[in-house]
Amino acid sequence: MDYLAILNKVLREVQPIIGSGKVADYIPALADADPTKFGMSITLNTGESYGVGDCYYPFSIQSISKVLSFTLALRHYRKDLYKRVWREPSGDPFNSLVQLEYEEGIPRNPFINAGAIVVCDSLLSKTPDLPTAFNELIAFVRQVSDDNSIDIDHIIANSEMEHGFRNSALANLMKSFGNIDNDVLSVLTYYFQQCSIKMTTQQLSRSFLYLANAGVDPISKIEILNEGQAKRVNSIMLTCGHYDASGDFAFRVGLPGKSGVGGGIVAVIPGKMAISVFSPGLNQNGNSVVGTKALELFTTYTGLSIF
Amino acid sequence: MDYLAILNKVLREVQPIIGSGKVADYIPALADADPTKFGMSITLNTGESYGVGDCYYPFSIQSISKVLSFTLALRHYRKDLYKRVWREPSGDPFNSLVQLEYEEGIPRNPFINAGAIVVCDSLLSKTPDLPTAFNELIAFVRQVSDDNSIDIDHIIANSEMEHGFRNSALANLMKSFGNIDNDVLSVLTYYFQQCSIKMTTQQLSRSFLYLANAGVDPISKIEILNEGQAKRVNSIMLTCGHYDASGDFAFRVGLPGKSGVGGGIVAVIPGKMAISVFSPGLNQNGNSVVGTKALELFTTYTGLSIF
Amino acid sequence: MDYLAILNKVLREVQPIIGSGKVADYIPALADADPTKFGMSITLNTGESYGVGDCYYPFSIQSISKVLSFTLALRHYRKDLYKRVWREPSGDPFNSLVQLEYEEGIPRNPFINAGAIVVCDSLLSKTPDLPTAFNELIAFVRQVSDDNSIDIDHIIANSEMEHGFRNSALANLMKSFGNIDNDVLSVLTYYFQQCSIKMTTQQLSRSFLYLANAGVDPISKIEILNEGQAKRVNSIMLTCGHYDASGDFAFRVGLPGKSGVGGGIVAVIPGKMAISVFSPGLNQNGNSVVGTKALELFTTYTGLSIF
Amino acid sequence: MDYLAILNKVLREVQPIIGSGKVADYIPALADADPTKFGMSITLNTGESYGVGDCYYPFSIQSISKVLSFTLALRHYRKDLYKRVWREPSGDPFNSLVQLEYEEGIPRNPFINAGAIVVCDSLLSKTPDLPTAFNELIAFVRQVSDDNSIDIDHIIANSEMEHGFRNSALANLMKSFGNIDNDVLSVLTYYFQQCSIKMTTQQLSRSFLYLANAGVDPISKIEILNEGQAKRVNSIMLTCGHYDASGDFAFRVGLPGKSGVGGGIVAVIPGKMAISVFSPGLNQNGNSVVGTKALELFTTYTGLSIF
Repeated sequence: MDYLAILNKVLREVQPIIGSGKVADYIPALADADPTKFGMSITLNTGESYGVGDCYYPFSIQSISKVLSFTLALRHYRKDLYKRVWREPSGDPFNSLVQLEYEEGIPRNPFINAGAIVVCDSLLSKTPDLPTAFNELIAFVRQVSDDNSIDIDHIIANSEMEHGFRNSALANLMKSFGNIDNDVLSVLTYYFQQCSIKMTTQQLSRSFLYLANAGVDPISKIEILNEGQAKRVNSIMLTCGHYDASGDFAFRVGLPGKSGVGGGIVAVIPGKMAISVFSPGLNQNGNSVVGTKALELFTTYTGLSIF
Repeated sequence: MDYLAILNKVLREVQPIIGSGKVADYIPALADADPTKFGMSITLNTGESYGVGDCYYPFSIQSISKVLSFTLALRHYRKDLYKRVWREPSGDPFNSLVQLEYEEGIPRNPFINAGAIVVCDSLLSKTPDLPTAFNELIAFVRQVSDDNSIDIDHIIANSEMEHGFRNSALANLMKSFGNIDNDVLSVLTYYFQQCSIKMTTQQLSRSFLYLANAGVDPISKIEILNEGQAKRVNSIMLTCGHYDASGDFAFRVGLPGKSGVGGGIVAVIPGKMAISVFSPGLNQNGNSVVGTKALELFTTYTGLSIF
Repeated sequence: MDYLAILNKVLREVQPIIGSGKVADYIPALADADPTKFGMSITLNTGESYGVGDCYYPFSIQSISKVLSFTLALRHYRKDLYKRVWREPSGDPFNSLVQLEYEEGIPRNPFINAGAIVVCDSLLSKTPDLPTAFNELIAFVRQVSDDNSIDIDHIIANSEMEHGFRNSALANLMKSFGNIDNDVLSVLTYYFQQCSIKMTTQQLSRSFLYLANAGVDPISKIEILNEGQAKRVNSIMLTCGHYDASGDFAFRVGLPGKSGVGGGIVAVIPGKMAISVFSPGLNQNGNSVVGTKALELFTTYTGLSIF
Repeated sequence: MDYLAILNKVLREVQPIIGSGKVADYIPALADADPTKFGMSITLNTGESYGVGDCYYPFSIQSISKVLSFTLALRHYRKDLYKRVWREPSGDPFNSLVQLEYEEGIPRNPFINAGAIVVCDSLLSKTPDLPTAFNELIAFVRQVSDDNSIDIDHIIANSEMEHGFRNSALANLMKSFGNIDNDVLSVLTYYFQQCSIKMTTQQLSRSFLYLANAGVDPISKIEILNEGQAKRVNSIMLTCGHYDASGDFAFRVGLPGKSGVGGGIVAVIPGKMAISVFSPGLNQNGNSVVGTKALELFTTYTGLSIF
């Protein structure tokens, strides 16, 4: 299949709607995002990679980082991790405290904010201090992306921290139920730093390749997760990867994926490739409008879908 | 692959746990189910079929019928159907009124009770009366199963009706929001008759073959749904097919599927086959304990999973 | 105190806002109510009675009837009644199913719809059939009002029944939890007939006099409730008498009372009198706008308040 | 009436159940409370005062302090205060985040934790810093109690702060909705200090006398609140003073009152007296078991009730 031709066809198709949606504006650093940007990349299990548009433009990956820290925590804790965070869709907005209160501090899944905060807490508990813990994550991200230049955006991290009252409420609520072990400030600092990691769609599609190849990075041949773990991360991305619109994304795109309010989305075609797209305008569920459309077109044109 | 050998291996593996779980007992007719029964069948897209255990034992398919009536309604209404029923996981037990009240009478998806009741109502609206409407469904089920002997169990249908206060609450609540067009009694009668359809695992795996073959029955060559519709039914089964344990099923089995409180489960491997299993003992979410385990083992032994 | 002068002062004060609010329109028979009507009456424990405006104009008492049927049920069941219906404010709109589902079919108090439906069910269980049961209630209402002409409005009762899907949902939900003993149709018929009772403000203030006199009708000297029961009905009216605005009514008026969507309100000054007011325009909580204002003015001018 | 004789009769009656209930144990400093303590006091509007049992034993007044800070905030803000906190019963446990999230950060009333935290925030905004703000409250409490020895318990205040994750969740959630103006740490420090104020039942009954006398301290003749404000504080105590058991307290005791998890309760008989009782064992709603019973007996023996 001529993937570059297909990517260019998608790029032409979405051109008229670029700029649609609403850029995340809960912190100034994100509100400044350029709504006219659009980039899309794929990296095949064979190692080939193709990109169009602003595919070398770094952006804040935000919630996409939750998959990477969850992967790292799975390596440390294996099945024990599921005692502290479930794997069910939430049926509530991504930052809801309601379900968390009814279910006594156990988040529904690792991809809603509460679940990701628990994952950060679990990673903190494995190291002596916050800098060591966070360096482990950055080292891991650099490994799977095969790119040592990747780093966080300190302005965004600090800005999130200053406006993170809702996430602080989630962390404090879980601590009141005994599901946060470290001090709330350290856990939130880890969480907001993780969300502020910047990557391009090229880097993102490269990074998620291990999930398209049963847990093994097909280029470096390093086993990141075992086969069962990789399949299960994919299944959680499919059922829970897009907040309260996960069903709609599965319905329209038919692939496991994860989105972020920075405008990025990454998706996986098991056995074949990882795909990433970026466009800052969001729909009411916090997912990139143009990004979702581009992925929908890509699966239509290629006929690739897990269903 | 020697599928019969694998099915026999699964049968041996689950033997010690047959009888686990709790048989549905909300109506006497279901409470009488024999907990020692276990049957499992596959039908390949090539037409080959294999079964083990009680694979010719008819049981009440209950909620599995929701996929069949939803398919029929999709044929009538196409995308318009989604105005009345969404396609998001619910994050609440299958018969919850809470979300329905907050979301003004629009059910989260067609596979929770409220959604299935709306689907029944939509089918009733397409015909002059209840008998004609229900005959259309039975004719459709006989077509996809290629078996004219399939029928409902009147004792179960009547018993459900007598104890169906929760479903009557759901239907009345939706009618108060304007999302039920026909009279509540007719809609519930249709719904309970549909749930009382009896099938064997052999018949069930045959019936769901169109969802394993992009909407076209691979044996009769008849197009039941178009390719996009079939993929989307599969995606809704994956995200919403097992009540509040849909994420767990996707996590453990990795296939689109639908379960019923009668103890049946059906699953689809796109491009390859449909699988059905039956064992009446249920877990706390209302899904067959042994059936879920058997499907988990089958995907492990065959390596078949959509992820 | 010159109560008639005070009532006339209140009448003059509210004149400019008569017609405010929105007449209940969920059934045609109520939507026809004349928004320009306003009546207000008091009956003292001494037997003296005063009225102004449309104080002889009969209207549908709607939810005010819940106090009368609750009184009757207390006479039959005494404390046992509280096993089936609590006495806590609900914090949710009057017809919410949410709390009822979380609390397994036990309504928060007898003055939300669900609680009143349970009360009707309990009264039905004490008699051989629906007509006998309802005649008992009408006889009781005629006794406390000392007026044999009081009756129901069949057009309203039938109209409520035809549009009562939300109440049917409540009744069916409670029956699924085992908190309704009789068949749902009979219970709802009783409930809607009760709501359709028509009274004037003169009759209403007379009828509630037993609650202003420690349970004993001060004119007929008949004990309707014992002293403890009467105080407790008053306390439930204060905390739960005005749906989700009960706190606001207690705050502004400072008296135990009960409102109905027909536009009536009745209130009690223990040891002194019962007051009734009628004006069909409702606020967003379903309470009469002008009626609430009139009561607020009355307590201000007389200095009478339980606080 | 011989109030001392009645108090002694109550003391004898509750003797057998002293020690019932469960002492609050969420912080060590409260868990140490002696469950065998029982004290009860009344102070009449005439200035006479009577006490029995451990009526000079100081205890942590906890949530009872909410009435005092609310009074102070009413003096500063008058009706404007109700823009930030409502006056409706909550129908949810006292520390629930659910309603707060659905109602966008506006607490149901000033006597649930969220509402009291908003009140503390409002008082902080009126002064340059936390010590000044809190000194204002202590000065006010010393004024109404006519006792300059009253102070906070620093061990309890610090212990609450260390375990206050649920309250921190509430404060952060409200700040995310814009309903907290000051920094969360200062607001919580104020709140926990206020809860740690220690008083005896003698001091408490003296302090609440202004609410029994239309806002004016009947001994010092100082106007604490105007008449309307005092009545309204009483009405909020009646409908919201006992967490999710406010209806039950109104039902059983029939007086406006406020309880605390330290085991104290204070109640008001408008026009007559204030009553206070202390016994550390709590029921499941967090209200003193023996204290509630003692108040119920006192109203029965005296015949005093607002209903």
